[in-house]
Amino acid sequence: MVKARAASGRRARPKTAEPKRSPAKAGARSSAVVAAAPAIILVKPQLGENIGFAARAMANFGLTDLRLVAPRDGWPNDKAHAAAAGAAFVVDQATVYDSVESAIGELNFVLASTARPREMVKTVLGPESAAAELRHRGERAERTGVLFGPERSGLDNDTIALADAILTAPVSPGFASLSLPQAVLLFGYEWLKTESAAPPLGRATAFDGPATEGIAFPDTRPATRAELLALFNHLEAELDRCGFLYPAEKRPSMVRAIRNMFHRMGATEQDVRTWRGIVAALSGHRAGRGKKVS
Amino acid sequence: MVKARAASGRRARPKTAEPKRSPAKAGARSSAVVAAAPAIILVKPQLGENIGFAARAMANFGLTDLRLVAPRDGWPNDKAHAAAAGAAFVVDQATVYDSVESAIGELNFVLASTARPREMVKTVLGPESAAAELRHRGERAERTGVLFGPERSGLDNDTIALADAILTAPVSPGFASLSLPQAVLLFGYEWLKTESAAPPLGRATAFDGPATEGIAFPDTRPATRAELLALFNHLEAELDRCGFLYPAEKRPSMVRAIRNMFHRMGATEQDVRTWRGIVAALSGHRAGRGKKVS
Repeated sequence: MVKARAASGRRARPKTAEPKRSPAKAGARSSAVVAAAPAIILVKPQLGENIGFAARAMANFGLTDLRLVAPRDGWPNDKAHAAAAGAAFVVDQATVYDSVESAIGELNFVLASTARPREMVKTVLGPESAAAELRHRGERAERTGVLFGPERSGLDNDTIALADAILTAPVSPGFASLSLPQAVLLFGYEWLKTESAAPPLGRATAFDGPATEGIAFPDTRPATRAELLALFNHLEAELDRCGFLYPAEKRPSMVRAIRNMFHRMGATEQDVRTWRGIVAALSGHRAGRGKKVS
Repeated sequence: MVKARAASGRRARPKTAEPKRSPAKAGARSSAVVAAAPAIILVKPQLGENIGFAARAMANFGLTDLRLVAPRDGWPNDKAHAAAAGAAFVVDQATVYDSVESAIGELNFVLASTARPREMVKTVLGPESAAAELRHRGERAERTGVLFGPERSGLDNDTIALADAILTAPVSPGFASLSLPQAVLLFGYEWLKTESAAPPLGRATAFDGPATEGIAFPDTRPATRAELLALFNHLEAELDRCGFLYPAEKRPSMVRAIRNMFHRMGATEQDVRTWRGIVAALSGHRAGRGKKVS
């Protein structure tokens, strides 16, 4: 009996989030490792709307494995389906369980989301650290999941004790109440952010992929220095002509200030042509408007 | 006339998010710099509930300056007040404007939240970069704000042209639809995260502050190595006695595996006492249960 327990204990998972030292599983050794996305497990959810909103938040960030433990109003639930809107497919393929133990049975690493860490000795992770940990484990072919509790009471202590670590979001201590779908949203958002150093931003269309950070140049390109210098020469010649760059001892600093404005602007080739036209128009010349001037 | 336009142009703000080189204002020079929180500006919001939910999301992350431009159903709005729940104070002190220009008049730097960057040459920032930029500017005493558009259509291009840069959240390109309160929530979340390297996690109580990442040790402390070694000696002696650590050539690796399990566990002083009791109980001794053994 002692032997059996000890042998069983040898397979027990550590109760902290520190990385395992054991070798990666064979499945995680391929060169292009794609981490399995975490399961989102709603424990005794009360409102169908919140199940639907949580499904939407999941779909927003590429999560699809929704598991429900004893939903209060039974299953399927029309309100969940309606609230999910375009993410109804997540609701349709949700799986339902009688107990938390069966819902997380095949998972290797489980987080418990709580608004407040309970009186337990347990690792606490914010959403960013939690997503990084689950991404890391997923890349080693571990199956992971996050438990979310009923709207009113949150997860009970016995359920939290089934998890490896606690997930708690940073919030203003004075107003810390996050709704169930909001808590799912913040985790999903951080999960997507771990997908790459530059995650896709915003909506893709039939004509165009998602955006990335930085300046976008639709239908144009940044101006070359030669184009800018031609603009500067044009502008400064006109400003000299009308007496704006006066007195002479202030001319250098005024020219620098004007040139720096254009550099800060990050002008495009089209912008330079527009400014050539503006300068020409304001100074009474008509040359250069609407056609390329070099 | 030319001179007046040029002089006005000299005060124009750059249209990119790169940091200004101009000296910080006097107010930002104190040793403890607190960045003014950004204003959240809802442009022509349609549903009162969404105004209330946005106010809740703001309060969750310490944002309180809510500005409304021409809310569809007038103002005040009972539904907004009700939906805000505990964040009704944000709704109550919201300010209302006829135009976007008047709502952002005193701000120095303005972002426009869109689900999809339009056909404009404009810097695009994700919520994390946007929050960092606004924190950085706020610490230099700049006033900042984020524009959010009507639920159905989003911000129009003329309004986006009033902003310095675009804010777009990372989402799954296949299901990119974020609700208005969700978009506010993600920005607010990233804003709070920039407040410190270890932002407060979860709810504070009358007895206890918010949590931080890592293992919490309520009412106990991590075990000392001496306590753990005494446990190991106790356990291994019992395992030797019952023949578990057999054959002898495997004993060293079995002992290491068992000891490593306890180290991974991050055992507390209380945990060690519990295990001393378990070992004693399983091995038929009664000594050591419930009292300190060293």
